[in-house]
Amino acid sequence: MTSSHPIPVGLLGATGMVGQQFVLQLEGHPWFRVAWLGASERSAGRTYAEAARWVQDRPMPEGVAGMVVQPATVSADCPEVVFSAMDASAAGGIERAFARAGHFVLSNSRNHRLDADVPLVIPEVNPDHMELIKHQRRERGWPGAIVTNPNCSTITLTMALAPLRPFGIRRVLVTTLQAVSGAGYPGVPAVDMLGNAVPFIGGEEDKLSVETCKLLGELRGGGDGVEPAAVTVSAHCNRVPTVDGHLVCASVELEAQPSPDDAREAMTAFRGRPQELVLPTAPGRPVQVVAGADRPQPRRDVGAGRGMAVTVGRVRECPLLGLKFVALGHNTIRGAAGASVLNAELLVAGGWMIGAQSLHGAENGEGQR
Amino acid sequence: MTSSHPIPVGLLGATGMVGQQFVLQLEGHPWFRVAWLGASERSAGRTYAEAARWVQDRPMPEGVAGMVVQPATVSADCPEVVFSAMDASAAGGIERAFARAGHFVLSNSRNHRLDADVPLVIPEVNPDHMELIKHQRRERGWPGAIVTNPNCSTITLTMALAPLRPFGIRRVLVTTLQAVSGAGYPGVPAVDMLGNAVPFIGGEEDKLSVETCKLLGELRGGGDGVEPAAVTVSAHCNRVPTVDGHLVCASVELEAQPSPDDAREAMTAFRGRPQELVLPTAPGRPVQVVAGADRPQPRRDVGAGRGMAVTVGRVRECPLLGLKFVALGHNTIRGAAGASVLNAELLVAGGWMIGAQSLHGAENGEGQR
Amino acid sequence: MTSSHPIPVGLLGATGMVGQQFVLQLEGHPWFRVAWLGASERSAGRTYAEAARWVQDRPMPEGVAGMVVQPATVSADCPEVVFSAMDASAAGGIERAFARAGHFVLSNSRNHRLDADVPLVIPEVNPDHMELIKHQRRERGWPGAIVTNPNCSTITLTMALAPLRPFGIRRVLVTTLQAVSGAGYPGVPAVDMLGNAVPFIGGEEDKLSVETCKLLGELRGGGDGVEPAAVTVSAHCNRVPTVDGHLVCASVELEAQPSPDDAREAMTAFRGRPQELVLPTAPGRPVQVVAGADRPQPRRDVGAGRGMAVTVGRVRECPLLGLKFVALGHNTIRGAAGASVLNAELLVAGGWMIGAQSLHGAENGEGQR
Amino acid sequence: MTSSHPIPVGLLGATGMVGQQFVLQLEGHPWFRVAWLGASERSAGRTYAEAARWVQDRPMPEGVAGMVVQPATVSADCPEVVFSAMDASAAGGIERAFARAGHFVLSNSRNHRLDADVPLVIPEVNPDHMELIKHQRRERGWPGAIVTNPNCSTITLTMALAPLRPFGIRRVLVTTLQAVSGAGYPGVPAVDMLGNAVPFIGGEEDKLSVETCKLLGELRGGGDGVEPAAVTVSAHCNRVPTVDGHLVCASVELEAQPSPDDAREAMTAFRGRPQELVLPTAPGRPVQVVAGADRPQPRRDVGAGRGMAVTVGRVRECPLLGLKFVALGHNTIRGAAGASVLNAELLVAGGWMIGAQSLHGAENGEGQR
Repeated sequence: MTSSHPIPVGLLGATGMVGQQFVLQLEGHPWFRVAWLGASERSAGRTYAEAARWVQDRPMPEGVAGMVVQPATVSADCPEVVFSAMDASAAGGIERAFARAGHFVLSNSRNHRLDADVPLVIPEVNPDHMELIKHQRRERGWPGAIVTNPNCSTITLTMALAPLRPFGIRRVLVTTLQAVSGAGYPGVPAVDMLGNAVPFIGGEEDKLSVETCKLLGELRGGGDGVEPAAVTVSAHCNRVPTVDGHLVCASVELEAQPSPDDAREAMTAFRGRPQELVLPTAPGRPVQVVAGADRPQPRRDVGAGRGMAVTVGRVRECPLLGLKFVALGHNTIRGAAGASVLNAELLVAGGWMIGAQSLHGAENGEGQR
Repeated sequence: MTSSHPIPVGLLGATGMVGQQFVLQLEGHPWFRVAWLGASERSAGRTYAEAARWVQDRPMPEGVAGMVVQPATVSADCPEVVFSAMDASAAGGIERAFARAGHFVLSNSRNHRLDADVPLVIPEVNPDHMELIKHQRRERGWPGAIVTNPNCSTITLTMALAPLRPFGIRRVLVTTLQAVSGAGYPGVPAVDMLGNAVPFIGGEEDKLSVETCKLLGELRGGGDGVEPAAVTVSAHCNRVPTVDGHLVCASVELEAQPSPDDAREAMTAFRGRPQELVLPTAPGRPVQVVAGADRPQPRRDVGAGRGMAVTVGRVRECPLLGLKFVALGHNTIRGAAGASVLNAELLVAGGWMIGAQSLHGAENGEGQR
Repeated sequence: MTSSHPIPVGLLGATGMVGQQFVLQLEGHPWFRVAWLGASERSAGRTYAEAARWVQDRPMPEGVAGMVVQPATVSADCPEVVFSAMDASAAGGIERAFARAGHFVLSNSRNHRLDADVPLVIPEVNPDHMELIKHQRRERGWPGAIVTNPNCSTITLTMALAPLRPFGIRRVLVTTLQAVSGAGYPGVPAVDMLGNAVPFIGGEEDKLSVETCKLLGELRGGGDGVEPAAVTVSAHCNRVPTVDGHLVCASVELEAQPSPDDAREAMTAFRGRPQELVLPTAPGRPVQVVAGADRPQPRRDVGAGRGMAVTVGRVRECPLLGLKFVALGHNTIRGAAGASVLNAELLVAGGWMIGAQSLHGAENGEGQR
Repeated sequence: MTSSHPIPVGLLGATGMVGQQFVLQLEGHPWFRVAWLGASERSAGRTYAEAARWVQDRPMPEGVAGMVVQPATVSADCPEVVFSAMDASAAGGIERAFARAGHFVLSNSRNHRLDADVPLVIPEVNPDHMELIKHQRRERGWPGAIVTNPNCSTITLTMALAPLRPFGIRRVLVTTLQAVSGAGYPGVPAVDMLGNAVPFIGGEEDKLSVETCKLLGELRGGGDGVEPAAVTVSAHCNRVPTVDGHLVCASVELEAQPSPDDAREAMTAFRGRPQELVLPTAPGRPVQVVAGADRPQPRRDVGAGRGMAVTVGRVRECPLLGLKFVALGHNTIRGAAGASVLNAELLVAGGWMIGAQSLHGAENGEGQR
């Protein structure tokens, strides 16, 4: 590998809001280089600058602006590693087609998260679940594979819970205050959000209940599935007029009943595989306990760890469940594009991609596509 | 009494934000008429229009604009019934002085809420606690009395809980999304709130835990105190960029484990003393279960019952505590000025003021002030 | 006429945001009663409660909730008077079809505003332009007619300018700060507006330049057209994160160079035909000069005259053009639904509808529809 | 100079909002190093971390957190170069005292901006006005001097106008949409700004009229004053609910009547002394013409040139004055702390500080302080 960005990657759903976040997250990435952009028929054939209605606060990277957008279909031009930022309405079939054709699909969509043989991974929390890939490829006979990351609010909650696993997590009651960027583009109308809050986000409460348990679950001995954690999670989800950053108020019942100090210490000391492997976009400290009595706050703390760290504050006793705190995660970085990219880094560094590359080489040689 | 507004009332702390809300709430009131305005030395001697920096969305009523503001000290000119919108920093001593001088002080301040002999009342929830007045006057030897209403977020929560009392309330986990008007004026700086949320409001979580239990408690047989309800309330309080209306996400454990339908029915059917007595500012239905899947919303539902009703939505099962829902109350009407005014209406209609009036008459005759 | 709401009216585009505002504006109207709702094929056949995604801050009136929505096509069931809240993309042809079939169409859409034979009217400003109806019906051979009201920001500006006509209006430089409700529903995405301002609104600046001149123009002797006023209007239009109320900063060059006091006096004294005729929704004072140094403000002053008055503040010298001030109008009431309803009231009270009624009667007799 | 930050600087008014911005702007500066913090008596004696209520979106630099805040009085410990972020209420006398004691005071306060012998400078616009320092020191007999930068909205406007000087600027009509951070801390109450706009900012319109003319004026031959430019500026100033970034809608009358293309070209080509001298915080392109039809937008474009560039969009014909456009500047960087720091860089690079240094050396030797 002679290039400074040795691994070309493709991007499905490149023009949408999450797609744009992938473009930003991959800009200047030391391992990956965007080499292929796929989107709907409407966008295909136009340059990215023409096709994407750019709504990010940072400018469009020049490297992608002139690239011609391709149809979101399997193509020999598309690199082996593919990020998927597609809408759930279309993502399922397309992602399977790409995996079947030998691609590693790192998906931000919800479609396959709960499939028994699909890893749902936060690299700091359950990196070993990546092992499911082997089972998945065997089972489905795919040279490629699908890897997923959780929903944005689930990532924030689960990152904050992970350091508490040694204390035995039993029950979690969580209320979210979620930013509008989590709804995509155009997303929530301004006339619904200005000076208002909406106490409902479709499907979100279920995701928090279910995805959290899979993430905190145990990989079964044979590596053919995950035993969900026996944690009861009940959620209230709200949309509030913030731009970026999901705030999560959590009360937690822990078997060992640690003190707030113990909990804070566990959070501060917490490190995971990405930190051990020093993955390029891994934050040095994945969970950062902030000091201010009124922190974390979305606008002020969302950038911690370049958007890849979760900040936690107000760790204190809960008269009802034992412990309570507030956590904040950047929903479009740690909670979306950054999550998939970190999963890809883990795949590469953990050696899970080797098999695929050889399969892929063979496949290319045989012209199977 | 020949006037259409027979009962003159005074207003302590008239120029501040809560004071302004009292002025609005009393405008055109069928029983009460603002006859005396008290405020700090700085304001005294100026007309209300000069002294008050008016920050309400409705214009200043003409009736008060020309009234001259008085010092907030006991005076023979001040009517018997006095509303207090004073800052907690000053309220305590002044309110006591007025009660000692024969006034009925209806206070929105926190200073005396937890005093054993001071009624903390929501008329729909615990009207019988008004009986404490007798004990208070006896104990303290006051011709007048102090009556308090709870903190704005507590009122919203407790109104929604009250209809569930027959099911046996055991534990409540509540997360609030509170509007900026709750912080008074100038209150929270815009630069802290635009596109932001602040997960902390000083003292608020304790108030929710403690005041709720007093409100739901039982008046002891002798009428000399209240036995707080054995309800555990744990709160997370957040300030969000809404103008009016505290949103409250509550999970509740109830002994009888009612279904969501049963809970909704109980809430809808709920009526209290103000509805029986048809008090002037009592809402016809104090708790209104709204239909929309994404309601209640502060900007859209805060006006229910002219700001005096609490709206409830999303009544559903909580996998952790049994039942969960969202409630919304107007923090500056039902949660502040309107609460005190309704307390005053209850006092009048319930006959608790009679004794005071005679005492007061005597006192005036003897020139004791 | 025995009913308390003698005149049934239809509503085209009933389910959209402007349609909803018409429903609210017509609720409890003393002259008009919504009797027919037309909308797109997708909505037709469902009740209004089912078809409309209600996004107003006041609840849906019960009277319309159960009405079945009809297709937006000419029908014998549709009353003679029809309000049109249709999107400009569809409004043109449908409005013409209704006028051709004998209806008086009061349109809020831009399609026909600049047609030489179509009145563009603000009742306080140019009621005589209604005379164009006669010419229009003759020219086009229609038993009905189309009457339009201007764009929301133009109404606000022109109402504030109208009292200054006696001073000779020459040049106007106007910068608008427009509310998001002006963009309809879903309109502007929240992620574009929170903590942001957008210095562009498609087509708006041209409308301000052109519509203002037609409104301030003279009806030609023969009543067959309007001579636009020779006023140069240059506009900068901005979308800002306010919900309701367009704020307009205007600098004006006037031939007679009145002092700010003279201008204020002219504005305060200003009355028009709606005030003379005491039309039901006409504000008593159409232009209200507010006192506060920092007023008008959208959230605080938008309700003046129940949304039908324009408030003006900061009338002062402009070192460049002579006079400057700030004006505020409620964009969805005075600037949209309320504007059309007031036009209808003028039509009725001014006797312009008589001809149509007889024509319509004849037509009905002949079954021409 | 052996250190990497050779020039120690002091900071007056260090704990306030503008002071905090200075701290951020100077963090990692290649020439300057914060060595002394001065603030009110209330803060003096405490560490900066204790004394400052930090309200920035980036964390407090560790370097200053532990520094002990000093009283804002002349002291031998204070370095020669001093930035002043003091409130206008206190700034005047203190700044003069420091200049009299030999300090170069780079002030963001308005107190001395219009003094005939005080330079009011934007380095790209009127660097030669720094010559006034010599006159000032001579006149006042000060070993030090006061240098000022303009008000935040004036900087934005004037930066955008400067490239148009060759066309002959005659008249400017400007309407601003200003962010809340411009009001300092606590500044504007949230309850006044959420979903609202305030069409008044005290003193701001005058500053735009007067400061712009001084900035665009000519240094008189003898260097003893500035002949203000004969430009008429009329301003409408509004506060809107944005956090950072003043948006400025300007219509301009130019003698040479350039086309929009010519104006855009002049803006794009514009460079000043800071660019020639490659000053550390100078943006490469001080005025950046942005492409999007709806740009610049505060939240999205405020960071251009790390907050030191002004972005301009929508350059088009104005039917009234000839040319119109929208400009955006970061009010707390380019419009405040960054402006003073760039002035200091110009002072150093332009050699204006040499005299002071020797004076200062002498003075130190003589222990005059």
